[in-house]
Amino acid sequence: KPINERQRLPVVPQGIERDDFLKALAELKGQLGAEHVEVNDKPLRDGWYMEHPNTHDMMTILDEEELVASAVVYPSNTEEVQEIVRWANKYRIPIFPISMGRNLGYGGAAPRVRGSVTIDLGKRMNKILDINPEDYTCLVEPGVSFYALYEAIQEKGYDHMWIDSPDLGGGSVLGNTIDRGVGYTPYGDHWACHSGLEVVLPTGEAIRTGMGALPGNNTWQSFPYGFGPYSDGIFSQSNYGIVTKMGMTLMPNPGGYESFLYTFQKEEDLAPLMEIIRPLRISNILENVAQVRHVTQAIAARGLPRATFFSSSGPIPNNIIHAAAAKTPVGDHTWAYYGMSYGPAHIRAHKLALVDSEFLKIPGAKKIDTSTLPPDEYFWARDRVAAGVPDIHELRWVNWTPNGAHIAFSPVSPIRGTDATALFALGKAAHDKYGIDFFPAFCVGLREMHLIVEIVFDRDDVKARKAALDCLRDLVDEAAELGYGEYRTHLVLMDQVAKTYSWNDGAIMKFNEKLKDALDPNGILAPGRCGIWPKRYRGRGWEM
Amino acid sequence: KPINERQRLPVVPQGIERDDFLKALAELKGQLGAEHVEVNDKPLRDGWYMEHPNTHDMMTILDEEELVASAVVYPSNTEEVQEIVRWANKYRIPIFPISMGRNLGYGGAAPRVRGSVTIDLGKRMNKILDINPEDYTCLVEPGVSFYALYEAIQEKGYDHMWIDSPDLGGGSVLGNTIDRGVGYTPYGDHWACHSGLEVVLPTGEAIRTGMGALPGNNTWQSFPYGFGPYSDGIFSQSNYGIVTKMGMTLMPNPGGYESFLYTFQKEEDLAPLMEIIRPLRISNILENVAQVRHVTQAIAARGLPRATFFSSSGPIPNNIIHAAAAKTPVGDHTWAYYGMSYGPAHIRAHKLALVDSEFLKIPGAKKIDTSTLPPDEYFWARDRVAAGVPDIHELRWVNWTPNGAHIAFSPVSPIRGTDATALFALGKAAHDKYGIDFFPAFCVGLREMHLIVEIVFDRDDVKARKAALDCLRDLVDEAAELGYGEYRTHLVLMDQVAKTYSWNDGAIMKFNEKLKDALDPNGILAPGRCGIWPKRYRGRGWEM
Ligand SMILES: Cc1cc2nc3c(=O)[nH]c(=O)nc-3n(C[C@H](O)[C@H](O)[C@H](O)COP(=O)(O)OP(=O)(O)OC[C@H]3O[C@@H](n4cnc5c(N)ncnc54)[C@H](O)[C@@H]3O)c2cc1C
Ligand SMILES: Cc1cc2nc3c(=O)[nH]c(=O)nc-3n(C[C@H](O)[C@H](O)[C@H](O)COP(=O)(O)OP(=O)(O)OC[C@H]3O[C@@H](n4cnc5c(N)ncnc54)[C@H](O)[C@@H]3O)c2cc1C
Repeated sequence: KPINERQRLPVVPQGIERDDFLKALAELKGQLGAEHVEVNDKPLRDGWYMEHPNTHDMMTILDEEELVASAVVYPSNTEEVQEIVRWANKYRIPIFPISMGRNLGYGGAAPRVRGSVTIDLGKRMNKILDINPEDYTCLVEPGVSFYALYEAIQEKGYDHMWIDSPDLGGGSVLGNTIDRGVGYTPYGDHWACHSGLEVVLPTGEAIRTGMGALPGNNTWQSFPYGFGPYSDGIFSQSNYGIVTKMGMTLMPNPGGYESFLYTFQKEEDLAPLMEIIRPLRISNILENVAQVRHVTQAIAARGLPRATFFSSSGPIPNNIIHAAAAKTPVGDHTWAYYGMSYGPAHIRAHKLALVDSEFLKIPGAKKIDTSTLPPDEYFWARDRVAAGVPDIHELRWVNWTPNGAHIAFSPVSPIRGTDATALFALGKAAHDKYGIDFFPAFCVGLREMHLIVEIVFDRDDVKARKAALDCLRDLVDEAAELGYGEYRTHLVLMDQVAKTYSWNDGAIMKFNEKLKDALDPNGILAPGRCGIWPKRYRGRGWEM
Repeated sequence: KPINERQRLPVVPQGIERDDFLKALAELKGQLGAEHVEVNDKPLRDGWYMEHPNTHDMMTILDEEELVASAVVYPSNTEEVQEIVRWANKYRIPIFPISMGRNLGYGGAAPRVRGSVTIDLGKRMNKILDINPEDYTCLVEPGVSFYALYEAIQEKGYDHMWIDSPDLGGGSVLGNTIDRGVGYTPYGDHWACHSGLEVVLPTGEAIRTGMGALPGNNTWQSFPYGFGPYSDGIFSQSNYGIVTKMGMTLMPNPGGYESFLYTFQKEEDLAPLMEIIRPLRISNILENVAQVRHVTQAIAARGLPRATFFSSSGPIPNNIIHAAAAKTPVGDHTWAYYGMSYGPAHIRAHKLALVDSEFLKIPGAKKIDTSTLPPDEYFWARDRVAAGVPDIHELRWVNWTPNGAHIAFSPVSPIRGTDATALFALGKAAHDKYGIDFFPAFCVGLREMHLIVEIVFDRDDVKARKAALDCLRDLVDEAAELGYGEYRTHLVLMDQVAKTYSWNDGAIMKFNEKLKDALDPNGILAPGRCGIWPKRYRGRGWEM
């Protein structure tokens, strides 16, 4: 796509004159150093995963000038974050904190309000403050990626501790966790595994949660709760504070591990499979957040463009996918279960035998002999991730379209055949309606599963973008009709998703707004994130 | 103790005239039915565990007229709770919700502010609203005890699901959980195991948290977080809302279990034992919240009064305790580790062998052949509790003194020899100073341990009560000096404990107060609980 090389005028946040804004920025430059305040007046470049922009969403679903930052600032410590917050209050300028800004599929680095000043915390606040080999914990700043944490642990020779990484290892441990992201070892529920936050409030004060509030403590990372109200939760998926430090627990090396892969032939196998998975998962025979993936995404994950297989428009036909699958080392199938068993060999044998006898009850189910799979096969990416080794193989399915971008639909349900079937049917119908290929993957938590549907689209094709967004909007509402809600969503869909959580006349949003107004009276921090608008913005047409 | 049988004038909350108060109560009677509003004008009877009072703390550490309710009301559903809250706002009357009021050691059923109207939720709101045998979850009202939940599951024949109970099974599942209590199976961290709340806010609105906010959902009890800020935590150990329903996950029957007991001879064995326990616990070889108990409490747990062994004042001498211990089936020791291994026999064998080889590294360590222990032995109470079977054997050590009452000191530390030694020394010195017998028990969580020190005292002996309280006050401050804080505390100590969480000039309390003022502008809900005073009370000498 041709990039317009001329200098752009920076977008200015609503309600402030351009000159006043530039003066305010100059003041901030005086405080942080001119080189740590960047006006966003250069061409918007999308880059790629490892060199992503912090000014906008590199996988934008709207025009990229829509959710765009006016400037980006780079604090180096908590005090500077506090200064920025006080500055924002003084001038009523919306600020939007990111850790590393790799929130792809959910909005990337973009702010919700056009012209916000993005606080890129990760660039300079990227220290691992502690790795504790006795307590199996660490304390990180926003700029520590899963890769960086993994490497630091390896470097110290701490073989006894694992990290848990999401599918892509380049994101920030802190950013992913406060957005309540998930990984694929038994420590996959990142939020449940964190312990202790340091937070700068929207009025500039710093607090430490849990045991962190006790001076001289040695328990901040080992006991999450502290005394009194346990407030960490309200800083996840919210706009109530800027998290500047986070404690995280580390998984003990289980003393052995072994991935496995089962394939299932028919679409209808999904329901009985889920019924088999549920009790095994709740009993920890299936131990990790495993994935049940559809074959279409397996084909896409090979990294070849869709045009290799099919050059017409509309969803790629089943027979083409199955023909392609038949030629892969894994062979033809509809669903694949990627799992891992942990512990010494004889303990694994016990669990794997149980899994095997249960899974094979489904006619046509096959245990794949993974020793025959070539090193580049997707299976090995799942193997690494489930062993806590960061990876980026998963990016490959983004090649499915030219200028590949994606946006996620992520509803939650119990682990049940009926729910899986209902969600699959819902997703399929909407994708068919909009002529989009359907990539469903069920990530099975403990008592619940996240269905992650990734819509891959050509981000330079306005029609494709619109189809993807329309499809998603339908999906959110249709799912809500059936009682399913999203665990997390894209910036552009936050208002819509928040509205589906409407019990008792929207009581939870009224409650969220009450907290927002108390904590952020000037409404400067990430207005609109997760659908929460501060008083100053409310009812003025900001929702979308 | 002689009870004064004459009718008492009910205590009236400060700031309202007696007549106005009685009129307001009459109005409430009109709303709830006269029989559901009880003025507290009868003699205060302490009763016993199974028939405890709801008007005051049956184990009071102050004069029982100090923290006493003016009236007790009995709502039957969420709407009536909302009515009571609106009524309290109208007349500015402090209300104090309890679930079952068996919070012994931490204040029992007493309100923090003298003359509060106690809302006894448990009496009429005691339904198990759901037990889900597929998802292994339940939904309970405040009046469901661990016994009641256990029995309902047994009755349905749901052998595949366990509950987790604290040491005493008579408390409320909901009340215990929102006070962040603990039990002794792998599901011992009750807060971590809950999923979904219904809460009446201090201004009367009802919210449902997590997936409960989505109409028609089937995920309220299987996915805890929902979308947007995860607000459950601020309703635990707080005074921000009245919880009217709570979801709880149930543990899958592990397919076998086996308790074990090791004894260790010397006080100094504590430090190396903790170093051995830590990695085994974090790796889940030790699977439950086990207890490491001191022999003095083991003797007391036999249920005989202290006078059986020693009739002088001052702490009971070591040699007497050891002589008594030598005569018990377990034999003499200083520390006992009560644990349980879960799963099929060959899986348990693997874990138990590891534990055995590690524990026996400590000279003098002994594995007790528990098959020789008589059925009434304390070990079997731990066995039941670790298998999710509610029990009340634990009450026996309250017989240690006449009119036995107790109050708890519960600091948290990492699982470390140095910390265990420091806390033990600290506790011992303070108990010696005040002439009190020292009952330390370390409850080993995952990366942290709660030291639970129970001071047993004669509640009719003013001097003994004062010694216990003075000792506790010293302990709290001395522990904080060393960086240790309490995970939970008695009503009377809440201000003091909250003050130890003082990082950055008491930033967390200022934050808590900001939330309190936003949510409870009239300051009617449980003023002072966990040290949080609403504006109307702040700085007016209510702290103690
Ligand atoms: C192919 C692919 C696969 C993916 N797989 C997964 C997966 O398996 N699991 C998963 O969870 N995600 C997945 N994602 C989504 C996303 O890439 C990750 O969640 C990523 O870790 C998020 O980016 P980040 O960590 O850099 O967070 P950021 O972008 O830095 O943060 C996310 C959001 O949180 C808020 N925030 C961040 N930091 C702060 C702070 N310090 N204070 C206050 N608010 C803050 C901001 O609103 C920000 O937009 C995937 C994405 C792609 C493209
Ligand atoms: C011998 C002995 C052993 C014990 N062992 C343990 C143990 O192993 N683990 C443990 O955790 N505890 C233990 N305890 C302490 C206590 O008995 C239990 O925690 C008990 O479960 C608490 O009482 P409850 O459940 O009836 O809660 P309640 O007394 O009903 O509630 C506790 C407090 O929470 C608040 N609250 C309750 N319900 C609500 C509501 N619906 N909305 C808002 N606020 C509410 C109130 O402030 C109340 O005072 C022990 C006590 C004794 C005497």
